[in-house]
Amino acid sequence: MFDPLSSWALVEKLRATTPLVQCLTNFVSMDVTANVLLAAGASPAMVHDAEESGAFVALGGMLSINIGTPSPRWVEGMVAAAAAAKARGTPWVLDPVAVGATPYRDRIVESLLAYRPALIRGNGSEIMAMAGRDDAGVTGVDSSRSSADARGAAIALARRLGANVLVTGKDDLATDGRQVVRIANGHPLMTKVTALGCALTGVSAAFMAVAPSPLAAAVAASAYFGVAGEIAAESAAGPGSLRVNLLDSFHTLDRERFLARARITLEEP
Amino acid sequence: MFDPLSSWALVEKLRATTPLVQCLTNFVSMDVTANVLLAAGASPAMVHDAEESGAFVALGGMLSINIGTPSPRWVEGMVAAAAAAKARGTPWVLDPVAVGATPYRDRIVESLLAYRPALIRGNGSEIMAMAGRDDAGVTGVDSSRSSADARGAAIALARRLGANVLVTGKDDLATDGRQVVRIANGHPLMTKVTALGCALTGVSAAFMAVAPSPLAAAVAASAYFGVAGEIAAESAAGPGSLRVNLLDSFHTLDRERFLARARITLEEP
Amino acid sequence: MFDPLSSWALVEKLRATTPLVQCLTNFVSMDVTANVLLAAGASPAMVHDAEESGAFVALGGMLSINIGTPSPRWVEGMVAAAAAAKARGTPWVLDPVAVGATPYRDRIVESLLAYRPALIRGNGSEIMAMAGRDDAGVTGVDSSRSSADARGAAIALARRLGANVLVTGKDDLATDGRQVVRIANGHPLMTKVTALGCALTGVSAAFMAVAPSPLAAAVAASAYFGVAGEIAAESAAGPGSLRVNLLDSFHTLDRERFLARARITLEEP
Repeated sequence: MFDPLSSWALVEKLRATTPLVQCLTNFVSMDVTANVLLAAGASPAMVHDAEESGAFVALGGMLSINIGTPSPRWVEGMVAAAAAAKARGTPWVLDPVAVGATPYRDRIVESLLAYRPALIRGNGSEIMAMAGRDDAGVTGVDSSRSSADARGAAIALARRLGANVLVTGKDDLATDGRQVVRIANGHPLMTKVTALGCALTGVSAAFMAVAPSPLAAAVAASAYFGVAGEIAAESAAGPGSLRVNLLDSFHTLDRERFLARARITLEEP
Repeated sequence: MFDPLSSWALVEKLRATTPLVQCLTNFVSMDVTANVLLAAGASPAMVHDAEESGAFVALGGMLSINIGTPSPRWVEGMVAAAAAAKARGTPWVLDPVAVGATPYRDRIVESLLAYRPALIRGNGSEIMAMAGRDDAGVTGVDSSRSSADARGAAIALARRLGANVLVTGKDDLATDGRQVVRIANGHPLMTKVTALGCALTGVSAAFMAVAPSPLAAAVAASAYFGVAGEIAAESAAGPGSLRVNLLDSFHTLDRERFLARARITLEEP
Repeated sequence: MFDPLSSWALVEKLRATTPLVQCLTNFVSMDVTANVLLAAGASPAMVHDAEESGAFVALGGMLSINIGTPSPRWVEGMVAAAAAAKARGTPWVLDPVAVGATPYRDRIVESLLAYRPALIRGNGSEIMAMAGRDDAGVTGVDSSRSSADARGAAIALARRLGANVLVTGKDDLATDGRQVVRIANGHPLMTKVTALGCALTGVSAAFMAVAPSPLAAAVAASAYFGVAGEIAAESAAGPGSLRVNLLDSFHTLDRERFLARARITLEEP
């Protein structure tokens, strides 16, 4: 179930079905998230305001909420969308950008958790902050903590919330609180391109439309993202060309290269 | 009048005069719209809030309004700008993104139509929704309808509003309700780059500054965009490099290559 | 002090220390500013709303405020951040985009000046408008005035405000009102990529974290930006590839190439 073959099957299913993904995301990630979703085969729609964010959920797409550049009006829209998703039974993804950096972000995350996200995608510092760890080391939007540091926090958070957690870093770890899946793909240069974590959050939501479980969606999204990033980095001269290549890689990645590279292992929790 | 030679003359006039184009556009398209306008030789200015959107129109630029990521405050700014354009006699362009997807978008479009846009640029589903067709098939921001499906709707809409319509898809169709011009350029990979339709809307507004009519502006913008896209696609490895190449193509496109590729035909309505 | 060697030392210090830079910037520049800051070795954080913009300043990062796409709620956030920076003694950078184009922008700049920016970064028209010159020629967000035209205005403005001014154009001029430093780098094609001036503003803020003075920060930022741009332009086919190459150049620029190209001269005021 959590292996390259199963994940690749989901990539093909995603490409074949073009799932609609509603994103409430930050201003920095708007462009790259939409482009990554298109390149991956999904149909992104950035629909954020409370006037319509709930109504749009009713169209039947997936939902991704990223709090990166929050303001009160946007939070209203996030709450309306999350509430609509919960009412409808749509599994949705939360990206708690820089939670722990300001009290405002903590309050936003708290209010959104009431609508029970199926998956939380964050870096090590964010997941540790959400798990209530005092050593989360949140200093901005970048992570000072590795996914390995956050392993225990991710499991504890998943159990407490009854949700799945995808903590990203050098390796990514996906957990439902019982099983832990390690995805050892990606490339360090990816940290020099803004909002790729946000884009991965959106891609995780897209995989929700085709995966048997949120955990399987998170694993497939992480592996697909990481493998595409590795291929992109091979011919990149820096972060500018990496981003361009990454979008090309999502579009052109094939089964053979994916299976040759994807490193997915089930670990003891 | 609606032929490659006339359209190319407008491209040269645009490059020579650097028209100011005020854009109220969605968050996803901000970057690519501004970059496309610069590469095409225009001077974009993203000025949206009601505090100044009307005042900025008075500076004498063209105006493009795209409702892609609307909220009440932004709609106030759109209305103020559209009202200023109407009062001043500035022909302006409306991009009704995902109209029909939510009642909110329908209301926004309705309120903006009072200020009589000179040109409406949309995909097949959007134009069919605006024409009141029940089979518009709006499911998100992408179109499930081709421009061919929307041909009759485009003509009917143009007649009802006394406006021009540019419906984009595999082929683009531009009409003032009497004449229909087909522009058969572009490349399928362009649908995998976000917000290119939005960028075309902005470019259409730029051509308004130099064209003898909104219909001529729409035709030139569509052909220029499509030819640049074809050239860009030839050396693209995917949607990432396509976008990069497209900006380069706008900047470097010359008369010879434009005339060799542009496919503009006047059809019976 | 204002020479290539000193500026390069600051580039290395920036790369070694990864300073946090809080940006309140316009929607067009979000992506490119964040990516330029990452490629330069800084850690950007776009945190804008009044609910948290002041609190975030307390985390100890640098601050960059760009008024490019203003609205009342954003201005509240800018004021809160600027006030927090002043209270804390954090030197901050102001980018007065298109000041002079509308009365609203003039009022915003006026209100922000109360919090005493350490550096103002603008094009010729913007600096002339801020200096109260009637011939500023503001017509949009692009400059109709060269940095040479604005030389006197920059010096006068710096003296009046007790601040530093970086006026950018073909050559850049940095002044504290007594000394004037000319940085003669850059490439004309850079004007065809949107928001590079905004990105330079952000980079100037990053250099504040490592420079002995705001003037030294402005000089280093300008030279680093200009040299990276020259290298990027050498292999660019147009504005699309220029932007990609520029991000690569920031990341890969080395001492030897910087020293060979940087043209920094101290002039008589």
